[in-house]
Amino acid sequence: MSEYPSILLEQAVNQMASLPGVGRRTALRLVLHLLRQKEQDVEAFSGAFLRLKKEVVYCRECHNISDSELCPICASTRRDHSTICVVENVQDVMSIENTGQYNGVYHVLGGIISPMEGVGPKDIEIDSLIDRVSKGDISEIILALPTTMEGDTTNFYIYRRLQNMINDKLQMTNDKCDLKISQIARGVAVGNQLEYTDEITLGRSIVNRIEFKG
Amino acid sequence: MSEYPSILLEQAVNQMASLPGVGRRTALRLVLHLLRQKEQDVEAFSGAFLRLKKEVVYCRECHNISDSELCPICASTRRDHSTICVVENVQDVMSIENTGQYNGVYHVLGGIISPMEGVGPKDIEIDSLIDRVSKGDISEIILALPTTMEGDTTNFYIYRRLQNMINDKLQMTNDKCDLKISQIARGVAVGNQLEYTDEITLGRSIVNRIEFKG
Repeated sequence: MSEYPSILLEQAVNQMASLPGVGRRTALRLVLHLLRQKEQDVEAFSGAFLRLKKEVVYCRECHNISDSELCPICASTRRDHSTICVVENVQDVMSIENTGQYNGVYHVLGGIISPMEGVGPKDIEIDSLIDRVSKGDISEIILALPTTMEGDTTNFYIYRRLQNMINDKLQMTNDKCDLKISQIARGVAVGNQLEYTDEITLGRSIVNRIEFKG
Repeated sequence: MSEYPSILLEQAVNQMASLPGVGRRTALRLVLHLLRQKEQDVEAFSGAFLRLKKEVVYCRECHNISDSELCPICASTRRDHSTICVVENVQDVMSIENTGQYNGVYHVLGGIISPMEGVGPKDIEIDSLIDRVSKGDISEIILALPTTMEGDTTNFYIYRRLQNMINDKLQMTNDKCDLKISQIARGVAVGNQLEYTDEITLGRSIVNRIEFKG
């Protein structure tokens, strides 16, 4: 006999437990919570994910999730369209937007290069980034990828592709191209004690020190 | 402008965050995980909860979730149908079944009496329990409700209702009725140190000591 008194219940628990970080005990608790709700509320719950999956649109410029062909950021005339911040995913766009410190536009890769997980350069939005930079009037690319081996690999790959693109353009047109490529600063987090900062971060923050402006 | 780049995304996050214990940041992570799955997988995910809600059956005897009118436990001839264990919910049935120490049947109340949350005796399966005991050939009722104020209140209420039922029966038929009413033992958990056990539990375990069988 199955651990569950009902196959329908077991199937619902299986689906809930397929979410990352949700164990079977938690899944059962969540499913029984749903079962206590009104039918129309369960319909709204179930419908929201399927509707998102079926009707989701990605911005044709930055590939962020969007409701229309051009996302609100790419459509805004108040944003600096000559600066592109390259990020891994939607959450990163939201995090940077929440800082209120950035007024350029974005390019969402939808992943980073990871040989371990079988993600290569063709699986993420790198070609479209190179295309976008070669066609547009871009002055700066800010690489804002995770501080991991995969992030560093992706940074380096994008940097090389951009250099190649610039060289090709130079040979063809003999025009000067001054595209600035930068990456976000890595260092001791604001509010952190030095003694609790890991050695690699602390080491980098010394090597990449910046001028003190009193 | 909304925090989310898409209304569909925001709605999906709202629904996911309506689950108990799921914050908005976790909800966003889970929704984006779903969005990366195949459409048929999202359909299976969404469908499971709605199907459970629409097609769920409760056992007509014990009110546990079931696939048929009688749950596998109530339908089994190998179980002792004269002993009923009264529990709050489905999880409790599964927990007791997992111990392998119980061979009777269950009665799932579907909640406990809680004036704070507006749950009265009529909102849970108490009437059906009294009815079941008065009609059936029951020798023992085991109360296995939570060790909380609400659990104690519900225990006491059920005890009184059973006593009334027995008295009524006595007056009508003049028959002797020997229904045993017990509750699960409360005490120091197996493997626990005495010094880390709370005072109330330790106190009860001394008052309710049992004979040592060496």
